[in-house]
Amino acid sequence: MEHHSKEEKLQNPIRQAKIIENMSVDDLVHAIDGCAFGAGKLADAVDIYTEMLGGGSTSFFGLAGAMVPAGMRQIVADLIRDGYIDVLVTTGANMVHEIVESMGLHHYKGCCECDDIELKNDEINRIYDVYLPEPYFVDFEEKMKAILSEIGSETISIRELMTHLGNNIDDRNSILKIAADMNVPVYCPAIQDSMIGLQAWLYKQTRPLNVDAFADMREIIDICYQAKNPGALLIGGGVPKNYIFQSMLISHQEFEYAIQLTMDTPETGGLSGATLDEARSWGKVSETARSVTVHSDATITLPILVAAARSRLAKM
Amino acid sequence: MEHHSKEEKLQNPIRQAKIIENMSVDDLVHAIDGCAFGAGKLADAVDIYTEMLGGGSTSFFGLAGAMVPAGMRQIVADLIRDGYIDVLVTTGANMVHEIVESMGLHHYKGCCECDDIELKNDEINRIYDVYLPEPYFVDFEEKMKAILSEIGSETISIRELMTHLGNNIDDRNSILKIAADMNVPVYCPAIQDSMIGLQAWLYKQTRPLNVDAFADMREIIDICYQAKNPGALLIGGGVPKNYIFQSMLISHQEFEYAIQLTMDTPETGGLSGATLDEARSWGKVSETARSVTVHSDATITLPILVAAARSRLAKM
Amino acid sequence: MEHHSKEEKLQNPIRQAKIIENMSVDDLVHAIDGCAFGAGKLADAVDIYTEMLGGGSTSFFGLAGAMVPAGMRQIVADLIRDGYIDVLVTTGANMVHEIVESMGLHHYKGCCECDDIELKNDEINRIYDVYLPEPYFVDFEEKMKAILSEIGSETISIRELMTHLGNNIDDRNSILKIAADMNVPVYCPAIQDSMIGLQAWLYKQTRPLNVDAFADMREIIDICYQAKNPGALLIGGGVPKNYIFQSMLISHQEFEYAIQLTMDTPETGGLSGATLDEARSWGKVSETARSVTVHSDATITLPILVAAARSRLAKM
Amino acid sequence: MEHHSKEEKLQNPIRQAKIIENMSVDDLVHAIDGCAFGAGKLADAVDIYTEMLGGGSTSFFGLAGAMVPAGMRQIVADLIRDGYIDVLVTTGANMVHEIVESMGLHHYKGCCECDDIELKNDEINRIYDVYLPEPYFVDFEEKMKAILSEIGSETISIRELMTHLGNNIDDRNSILKIAADMNVPVYCPAIQDSMIGLQAWLYKQTRPLNVDAFADMREIIDICYQAKNPGALLIGGGVPKNYIFQSMLISHQEFEYAIQLTMDTPETGGLSGATLDEARSWGKVSETARSVTVHSDATITLPILVAAARSRLAKM
Repeated sequence: MEHHSKEEKLQNPIRQAKIIENMSVDDLVHAIDGCAFGAGKLADAVDIYTEMLGGGSTSFFGLAGAMVPAGMRQIVADLIRDGYIDVLVTTGANMVHEIVESMGLHHYKGCCECDDIELKNDEINRIYDVYLPEPYFVDFEEKMKAILSEIGSETISIRELMTHLGNNIDDRNSILKIAADMNVPVYCPAIQDSMIGLQAWLYKQTRPLNVDAFADMREIIDICYQAKNPGALLIGGGVPKNYIFQSMLISHQEFEYAIQLTMDTPETGGLSGATLDEARSWGKVSETARSVTVHSDATITLPILVAAARSRLAKM
Repeated sequence: MEHHSKEEKLQNPIRQAKIIENMSVDDLVHAIDGCAFGAGKLADAVDIYTEMLGGGSTSFFGLAGAMVPAGMRQIVADLIRDGYIDVLVTTGANMVHEIVESMGLHHYKGCCECDDIELKNDEINRIYDVYLPEPYFVDFEEKMKAILSEIGSETISIRELMTHLGNNIDDRNSILKIAADMNVPVYCPAIQDSMIGLQAWLYKQTRPLNVDAFADMREIIDICYQAKNPGALLIGGGVPKNYIFQSMLISHQEFEYAIQLTMDTPETGGLSGATLDEARSWGKVSETARSVTVHSDATITLPILVAAARSRLAKM
Repeated sequence: MEHHSKEEKLQNPIRQAKIIENMSVDDLVHAIDGCAFGAGKLADAVDIYTEMLGGGSTSFFGLAGAMVPAGMRQIVADLIRDGYIDVLVTTGANMVHEIVESMGLHHYKGCCECDDIELKNDEINRIYDVYLPEPYFVDFEEKMKAILSEIGSETISIRELMTHLGNNIDDRNSILKIAADMNVPVYCPAIQDSMIGLQAWLYKQTRPLNVDAFADMREIIDICYQAKNPGALLIGGGVPKNYIFQSMLISHQEFEYAIQLTMDTPETGGLSGATLDEARSWGKVSETARSVTVHSDATITLPILVAAARSRLAKM
Repeated sequence: MEHHSKEEKLQNPIRQAKIIENMSVDDLVHAIDGCAFGAGKLADAVDIYTEMLGGGSTSFFGLAGAMVPAGMRQIVADLIRDGYIDVLVTTGANMVHEIVESMGLHHYKGCCECDDIELKNDEINRIYDVYLPEPYFVDFEEKMKAILSEIGSETISIRELMTHLGNNIDDRNSILKIAADMNVPVYCPAIQDSMIGLQAWLYKQTRPLNVDAFADMREIIDICYQAKNPGALLIGGGVPKNYIFQSMLISHQEFEYAIQLTMDTPETGGLSGATLDEARSWGKVSETARSVTVHSDATITLPILVAAARSRLAKM
């Protein structure tokens, strides 16, 4: 916590946002740059993300929440393709839905106020207002069986499993495929907590599959050791946030940039909603890091953040 | 709740958002139009707001929360000036801060993690990450005294008080002034719950001031009676949301359009977070109304909504 | 913000809660007294509330949210009857539902996941998981007409209107009746924002009714001037929270005790979720006040707080 | 979604809670049984949990969030000891803090509004309002080294690692020890996402440690297959919630009882806040299951739930 003089505290007048037709996303972010609350924080996030991506920071991306089913897959895939993500840490569920999409199968826009028994009878699984036909998991099982059968009996890490999945996906918009092509590691610590885990279990009933729970740690910690001005963009909290932070912590480096886009708040005491200041007490985020948390729906703030940062990077 | 066949449920595939540099806000909204969660809902809100504003709907605007200190004043002022708000219902606090801004005094961008005792010693009042110098209230008092002294002893309504305030403001960006100029009524049911109320109390110590608590109701209910395809955009909940809804209810009309931009959720049982479906059980919102709630920071979603809707209206 | 030495920071070990059968509520609060997060804060709230009620503090009670429909009416009524509330500030809606209950009419436990169109066809109004038969408002109208007709044409304050309502209620569990009997003032700044307001409007169509919007302020500010170690228990935020705080502010006194039971969080920037530290920057809450916010459902925390504080007060 | 006649909808009047001194926790739960919002839901949760524990249900317990640092460790340990938990699924972090406590080291009650840089300089790590001295992790490392060194080079599952940890803990209040003694399996899918993972990594630098990421799945799915009227109590969401639900799903059984104590709400679309109705669309929770979500701080609701259910079970 910095202490400022009274004069320093009153240096930046709120500038009332002027919103006009046909403005670009970056214009809009500049228009809310002088505002407070979430608007001002989102504008800060754009500044920080632009500096982080433009300055050669080693860039970590934490992807929790059901972001792929919600429509954020292409944004993540494009960020990897364009070199803006060096390390992706995500959840098993996002990777399941990413594989489903890569098979040409779709998620559907549904309704969050509905009759779930009726959905069950229709064999439709619901994720808030997203519908997914249950029979898709039969296709998914076939796909997974085929991919897993090409893994030998040697022990591999979860990251190697993710790379193997990516190498066996034929879809140019696939997060996993692009990551594999670009040599961007994808970590997924709780992989067994997903339909991928279930398929692995089914597969292991009859054939060997040896995935070491701890084998990734050396690799990600090495990346942290060698990271340059590391920065983290965290979508939601969960395992990705903690795993990114603890890996940096153990490497005795600290994040110099940190952005959280989340609806979680600190009051529950859980890590997902914990402030980035709390992370400073641990040495996960440096004392002088540029950091901001935007408490707002990430399916809204992520597209704005990326659109504005890309616009600025294009001018550099 | 509508019931659809399985085929109808699976008609709209999620379209993964494609975000590119230099895109316009409206392009961005189109890009997230096929997404789910808050993104899809915000895109729906833009559709609904455009139809509502473009189709001659009687347009109600509920403004709760500290939106003026946060930088949303100009957006509201411009919407009134351009004929997009027919009725404004707001809180006393927003009107206090609107008057402060109209005097050329500023709010300042501060910090939400700070030492409030230090702020108190610096005579700075805090509103989340907004700072307001306490001495401004001395200027505000002078301004209010001057304005109130021109009101006679006849009984007036709160709306008439708001119009009187607007007529005595000399700032072309003032919500109250523009509303007064455009004959847009501003209702502020809990006006005494604000610094305006405190000034009114001080003034009443020595001179007559008669503001009738119930005098507004006939007027707003008459507007509701005569409303054409009424629509409501509600920023936050609070008194503005309820007052707009109950006025429409008593007029035996119903809202045909309703948009909520709020972080409040239904689980507390309070009206602020209540769903728009709940409002249907009361007959506040019609069975067939187009409605959506976007659970996200309104200082982010309001600028996007307005920028995109204005872009579309300009093309009509 | 206090600064402590490292030793001071590590003085109070977390005591793991031991929960056993047949324990009393006060035992449970003692059991969670050494816990963190909401549990520790609730235990603090019990300490503060007991000291506040036991020590002769002038006791303000802010009641927002739909607490009467949810079943919290008796708790408030009993606190008034037993002398634990000196000033009640509440919403019009709570007073409407209080009058409905006083007429022997009931609210009903319903379901929050329901078909609101079906409810509308059944003439049932929904408040989250509470159902209220719409025809009750016909009875309510008759009751209000009868009560209002006994008010003359002189100008009265909203508080006087509340007292008049209380004097005309025949139900020994009525908040308004007990408050009137005990000379406890009930303030309801946004009274027109409720069915009481609508009835007042209907009544004013044919007969005089003059309620001054600002007439209460002198009275509540005088109470604040004369208050002794004032304390506030705030259920939810909204108008009651602000009105209580601004009245104390203008009196140049400060609250020495402040407890918030709310689900609102600070991130939206609105007053409802604002921290009590923020209130210190304004001088609403004193630098040395004992204060705590419990972020948890108030229909759970209020009963616990009252049960535990009453148990302790009984032993004093 | 059930459809009821109008008469059925209006069968259960809200009963206003009567709160008196010296009442027991179970009395309090009975007092709020007729209330709505969180109060009514908590009372439902007590009914469901009592039936679930009293009727021989196979009982799953999901423990997310920083519940052990906050003081909920003893409650969980006692539930296992008394046979009320058949399967525990938790996070690595909770198990780290459980081991720290088992070593006689303490967490400390701190402050959530503090100077995190000062804390860092004091070598204190913060978890909301809990402080943990950083040097404790040196002791933790020694302890882990000693325990891990007794594991051979054969491949084990994460559950076996947890059992091994429990067998090497000497503290009669330890969750892990009691679970090991009682043959209650502890699953911790994201174990590498914790300080245990970091210690495992350090250990693996020099010695073999083979923990199979997928080896647990057969075991937990077998438990699900054989479960009798399975029930789940979920504290927070996260990996524990999903892992419990997906294991039951794959076994083609469904939960007949499900209770969530959480502050997460559905609007973000993430699994943590997803409704139990959503789980019905997947077949994770049965159509006819008794289920309830209490949106309130779990450090408050868990002690009440357990105190009241234990009181009722003691009378059976």
